[in-house]
Amino acid sequence: MDPVTPPVTTRFGSRPMTLSLTSRNARSSAIRDLLAHARRDGVISLAGGLPAPELFPSDKLAECAPAILCDPANLQYGLTEGEVPLREWIAERHSIADHRGTRPDDVQIVSGSQQALDLIAAVVIDPGDTVVVSEPEYLGAIGAFRRAGADLVAIPVDSAGFDVEALAQRLRAGLRPKICYVIPEFHNPTGASTTIKRLRLLAELADTYGFLIVEDSPYSALRFEGDPVPSMCTMTDNVVQCRTISKTLAPGLRVAWMIGPQWILDAVRIAKQSADLHTSTVTQHLALALLSDITWYEAHLLRIAAHYRDRRDALATALHELMPNVPFHRPSGGMFLWLTFPADANTDLMLARALDAGVAFVPGSAFAVDNDMSACLRLSYATASPDQLREGVARLASVVDLP
Amino acid sequence: MDPVTPPVTTRFGSRPMTLSLTSRNARSSAIRDLLAHARRDGVISLAGGLPAPELFPSDKLAECAPAILCDPANLQYGLTEGEVPLREWIAERHSIADHRGTRPDDVQIVSGSQQALDLIAAVVIDPGDTVVVSEPEYLGAIGAFRRAGADLVAIPVDSAGFDVEALAQRLRAGLRPKICYVIPEFHNPTGASTTIKRLRLLAELADTYGFLIVEDSPYSALRFEGDPVPSMCTMTDNVVQCRTISKTLAPGLRVAWMIGPQWILDAVRIAKQSADLHTSTVTQHLALALLSDITWYEAHLLRIAAHYRDRRDALATALHELMPNVPFHRPSGGMFLWLTFPADANTDLMLARALDAGVAFVPGSAFAVDNDMSACLRLSYATASPDQLREGVARLASVVDLP
Repeated sequence: MDPVTPPVTTRFGSRPMTLSLTSRNARSSAIRDLLAHARRDGVISLAGGLPAPELFPSDKLAECAPAILCDPANLQYGLTEGEVPLREWIAERHSIADHRGTRPDDVQIVSGSQQALDLIAAVVIDPGDTVVVSEPEYLGAIGAFRRAGADLVAIPVDSAGFDVEALAQRLRAGLRPKICYVIPEFHNPTGASTTIKRLRLLAELADTYGFLIVEDSPYSALRFEGDPVPSMCTMTDNVVQCRTISKTLAPGLRVAWMIGPQWILDAVRIAKQSADLHTSTVTQHLALALLSDITWYEAHLLRIAAHYRDRRDALATALHELMPNVPFHRPSGGMFLWLTFPADANTDLMLARALDAGVAFVPGSAFAVDNDMSACLRLSYATASPDQLREGVARLASVVDLP
Repeated sequence: MDPVTPPVTTRFGSRPMTLSLTSRNARSSAIRDLLAHARRDGVISLAGGLPAPELFPSDKLAECAPAILCDPANLQYGLTEGEVPLREWIAERHSIADHRGTRPDDVQIVSGSQQALDLIAAVVIDPGDTVVVSEPEYLGAIGAFRRAGADLVAIPVDSAGFDVEALAQRLRAGLRPKICYVIPEFHNPTGASTTIKRLRLLAELADTYGFLIVEDSPYSALRFEGDPVPSMCTMTDNVVQCRTISKTLAPGLRVAWMIGPQWILDAVRIAKQSADLHTSTVTQHLALALLSDITWYEAHLLRIAAHYRDRRDALATALHELMPNVPFHRPSGGMFLWLTFPADANTDLMLARALDAGVAFVPGSAFAVDNDMSACLRLSYATASPDQLREGVARLASVVDLP
């Protein structure tokens, strides 16, 4: 494990001052700086997880906004837990989807699900506590848990998702985590979904060993084929569900929510009061206006899933044709595809060459926890058009050392 | 000092789990629960610091919103530091106001100034570090610094504001804080402003003893008389300025900013990435649309200052007439007025009687750090009309033990 707060010393006034930073955060920032080049003209970015802007419901938002902004109540300070009608809508929807009663008080609105992770970590984790994540893992989750001082334990991901059997073995050997973080469907960065059998085992393990499952499902609505996976809240009470509109409506609204045991929500509310008082009432009401027009919303979800499916197909086809010897698992939803090169490949070095050739990706090392991930890389098919995806793969194939 | 993280034990799974909470946060929450009664019909609330909703720029927002929402770039993920044109506007405005060059890169957008305090605390404070605050003090600042594990040292406030001479004495005696938090103008809860002489001394102390001044100025635009106070950034480099649109435009947008030394901004950006990625791009652009119409904005600031001045006058007049023996300092701006009863008074108990009589206030204990503040209470003149303010004081006078 890394030390949690290696001192970053800076001159301040007449004496040195120590900042509470983590070295891994500094590394993620370095990759971020490198990827700033992806915004150069002519570079096809398969790097960022940016939703396709042409799918944003701009017209509908523009239509709803004036009435929302003309009600002064929507511009005032709001409740820390979130606006009541939005929590009512969410509670009703979850009651149906999860086959169990969910009350508005079971819902906490947050400023993006990144904030849910950060607040959960802040209230559950004391420095030195263990959090189980997968490896490779979503950068933002690593950052939030590390910021709270957690020691991360990494469990592998394979084509059947999070390797719960490997976790069971570690638990039997004495591992005692406080949290296990999991993206059951269309994992970022691998695109893999965890089988229901494994999820049921994970729920049993949470009950047996007494840890909290943080179930993060930003991509679940972007399913291209196969049956939806039930929330783990149908399998155990030791779950916090994190949901967001960032991938389905618009990330710029910063509206997401969490549902979980009362003791977590109570603690999170107190922490959120200090963190930012409450999420914007304006953006909550804009989100509600879209969500509550159910006919429009359901049609919109179908439309965006079809859109991303076409992109997934374009990317997968190009990879099969142009880089036939690089293995990957074809994701059945979400935004990401994970490429695995031979063990001696270095995708950090590959990135510089790829940028020169006009294509960007995120190297595997950005998602590493304990192990070397530099033989892998993540491609996003969310933003580029089918033609750009094909051209991006052609550029990539020209610079990588193909097996 | 309180212990920072007294264990709050809760049953979880098969073993007890400890939550990282502070006891003071729990207390602030208790007062919050009590004040929920202030929302009952017929209760005149002089409690919350809610801006007058009739001053919200609803029409102008409704007019600007459709064009903003129709640009997909405004709905996308944004930069952690904040939207470039908003930071450009802020930098230009500060360059003029503070008589020194401020670049857009010197500005960090945050989701309300509460978040600025929380992030500054998170990156500067290690558990056990000392933060100097005034007493009584703004609840949210106390919460943010305690959440980071700070030991708070309280310095009194008098009619000349923050008692910097008292702080100087403590520093000479060996006190070594990392942060000194100050609201120079129209302090919450006392309404007092700190004299320039004291502010200059505070700047000298920061340079001599090497601590960071966190200058919070949410109410500065609400000045009713007298000359504006220059930012402390004109007196020392060891300052972070926190500014917000919550009191001047609309708190529901959750847009604020901080300006400070590069090493603080660099660290805050990394922390904010974990905390919530970035502030809503939508509300940032809504705020910019209002701010950048300078003619409208300047007229709006004059209009709201005149509005709150009338309220301050109504409240002060009613207090002089109906509670002539209760001393208070007449604030020359802001939203709050602080009443001091004889030392044996208990405003916690008074609150229950006041609510029965149909008026709400915040008891002094809510703003306490180390000392007993229960002989005092805070009145807000921000939300009630002049008639309601007078009636509220009449109700208060009927239940308090007048000296």
